[in-house]
Amino acid sequence: MDVATLQYLLGMVGTIAFAVTGVLAVTPRGIDLFGACVLGLITAIGGGTIRDLILGVPVFWEADQNYLWVALAASLVAFLTDRFLTRKEIYRTMLYLDALGLAMFAIQAAQKVMWIDFGRPLAPIMMGVLTAIGGGLLRDVLAGQPTLLMRRELYAIPVTCGCILYVVALIWFPAFPVLIGLACSILILALRSSAIYWNLHVPLWLTTQSKEKDSNDGST
Amino acid sequence: MDVATLQYLLGMVGTIAFAVTGVLAVTPRGIDLFGACVLGLITAIGGGTIRDLILGVPVFWEADQNYLWVALAASLVAFLTDRFLTRKEIYRTMLYLDALGLAMFAIQAAQKVMWIDFGRPLAPIMMGVLTAIGGGLLRDVLAGQPTLLMRRELYAIPVTCGCILYVVALIWFPAFPVLIGLACSILILALRSSAIYWNLHVPLWLTTQSKEKDSNDGST
Amino acid sequence: MDVATLQYLLGMVGTIAFAVTGVLAVTPRGIDLFGACVLGLITAIGGGTIRDLILGVPVFWEADQNYLWVALAASLVAFLTDRFLTRKEIYRTMLYLDALGLAMFAIQAAQKVMWIDFGRPLAPIMMGVLTAIGGGLLRDVLAGQPTLLMRRELYAIPVTCGCILYVVALIWFPAFPVLIGLACSILILALRSSAIYWNLHVPLWLTTQSKEKDSNDGST
Repeated sequence: MDVATLQYLLGMVGTIAFAVTGVLAVTPRGIDLFGACVLGLITAIGGGTIRDLILGVPVFWEADQNYLWVALAASLVAFLTDRFLTRKEIYRTMLYLDALGLAMFAIQAAQKVMWIDFGRPLAPIMMGVLTAIGGGLLRDVLAGQPTLLMRRELYAIPVTCGCILYVVALIWFPAFPVLIGLACSILILALRSSAIYWNLHVPLWLTTQSKEKDSNDGST
Repeated sequence: MDVATLQYLLGMVGTIAFAVTGVLAVTPRGIDLFGACVLGLITAIGGGTIRDLILGVPVFWEADQNYLWVALAASLVAFLTDRFLTRKEIYRTMLYLDALGLAMFAIQAAQKVMWIDFGRPLAPIMMGVLTAIGGGLLRDVLAGQPTLLMRRELYAIPVTCGCILYVVALIWFPAFPVLIGLACSILILALRSSAIYWNLHVPLWLTTQSKEKDSNDGST
Repeated sequence: MDVATLQYLLGMVGTIAFAVTGVLAVTPRGIDLFGACVLGLITAIGGGTIRDLILGVPVFWEADQNYLWVALAASLVAFLTDRFLTRKEIYRTMLYLDALGLAMFAIQAAQKVMWIDFGRPLAPIMMGVLTAIGGGLLRDVLAGQPTLLMRRELYAIPVTCGCILYVVALIWFPAFPVLIGLACSILILALRSSAIYWNLHVPLWLTTQSKEKDSNDGST
């Protein structure tokens, strides 16, 4: 099995994980079959779709509809088996697969944007992050839930670090794209997995919440 | 009057109905003239606009601005006469016209996507549904209301059934596009009208709400 | 300094003001560094990005990444110094700079759409308004706050008036594009600044809220 095939298969695993975690994020609030499939599909392909619209290229799922079929099937299965999937150990496995998808999609997107030489160096980083978290943002907005931008979950920051490192390293060492891509994917996966494993959050001094508490304490 | 003219006129009726129901969905929560026109316009043209962006074709209202004028005028009238329009019998009529728009726009969109041979067979179905419900989703998100994905209203499922049937039938019997389009539009209209008339909702066993209740009952 | 350079510099001032007010709009609710930068960036470039997607032209920040750097730097500074920036007199200054950005971006966008002859006369007005308020709408939706469409703030109406006047005047007097653009920018700035200075809101008779109260009073 060559690198491209492996990447493709991992991309499908990521698509499944995104769709499943997307559905499981909304099932506790009561949703019907149609809503579950739409939100699972949007979580899986939403980020990449917005990226392609901004890049001005055809959407990635038009040429390869497997992404749609896999995302829809995974959403359907997640809807039907959500009692099983929300068991603690199963759900944790899904979170790690979701982290794998995050790492794959972010670096693949940054790679795509570097290749077509679009708005270097900032755009590849932005598009990497957008591809990884855009679908989840869309889902939360459509489901009326707080988006991850307003939560202290350590989710987008690992992705951003990985994408920044990828673009900087590729500009300095353009001869090793595969190696750098692999290393940065592993970095994102490791950081996000650590956050899941040790239940890490964004430290309070990096949020404005902490400042408010400080000033409240000061005024008391 | 030929088929195309009739279709065009029905499209305008649908545009009016979308704009009016769009405005009436937000007026109870207090909105100014500007907000009403923006949300009415978005409800009417939002779905088709997102569809055209994804297809990579010029937005449909650029070539024919009548859609904009009609949607803006309908929104303005709806804002000024909302006390009259929210009368029970009038509002019910608007709901049936909205169902007509739903049927028209969904099948027209699926047709457009089939013609340009974009991502068959899934994309025509997805784009049909998106065109029909996308504007309403955008409106609800901008107005801070729960979107229809989170409600048990029987709104999107009739559209999805009609679009699936349209695409499947057209692949099997490509010689009868007009007949199949007409039949599927009527199917959507009939299903949605039944839902309005008998106040039907998505059955509980097709939602996750029911499962939660079951498990609650079981644990008691 | 010629007109184009001045316009460019004012555009950067507007970008800074949009990013800063964008961040300050969400810091009271507790947000981390990543969320602040994303929401500041989206407030600054979101409206223009959606406009360019609809026009079918490359996004404006691809050719000139200064918009991204300036918006990101301004968001970072705003996050770090939000206690200072939320002081009454400083925040008021930011609001006036935001009004300047509003005036600049709206008329520049309307101008751009007139030049490429896209959907006159309605599209230039719509795109002017969208460019000015689109980023703020996106930010509010992602932050889970009521959008300005649901508030009675006098924010979008000055922009709309300015854009309508610009398009109408330019169609009647096509020989004076710079003069008309300048006059309409000043009009928007003056109207919005008045709204900030005298704390003006959309009059109640232009909202549906008032009608509800009337009917409540009537029924009592």
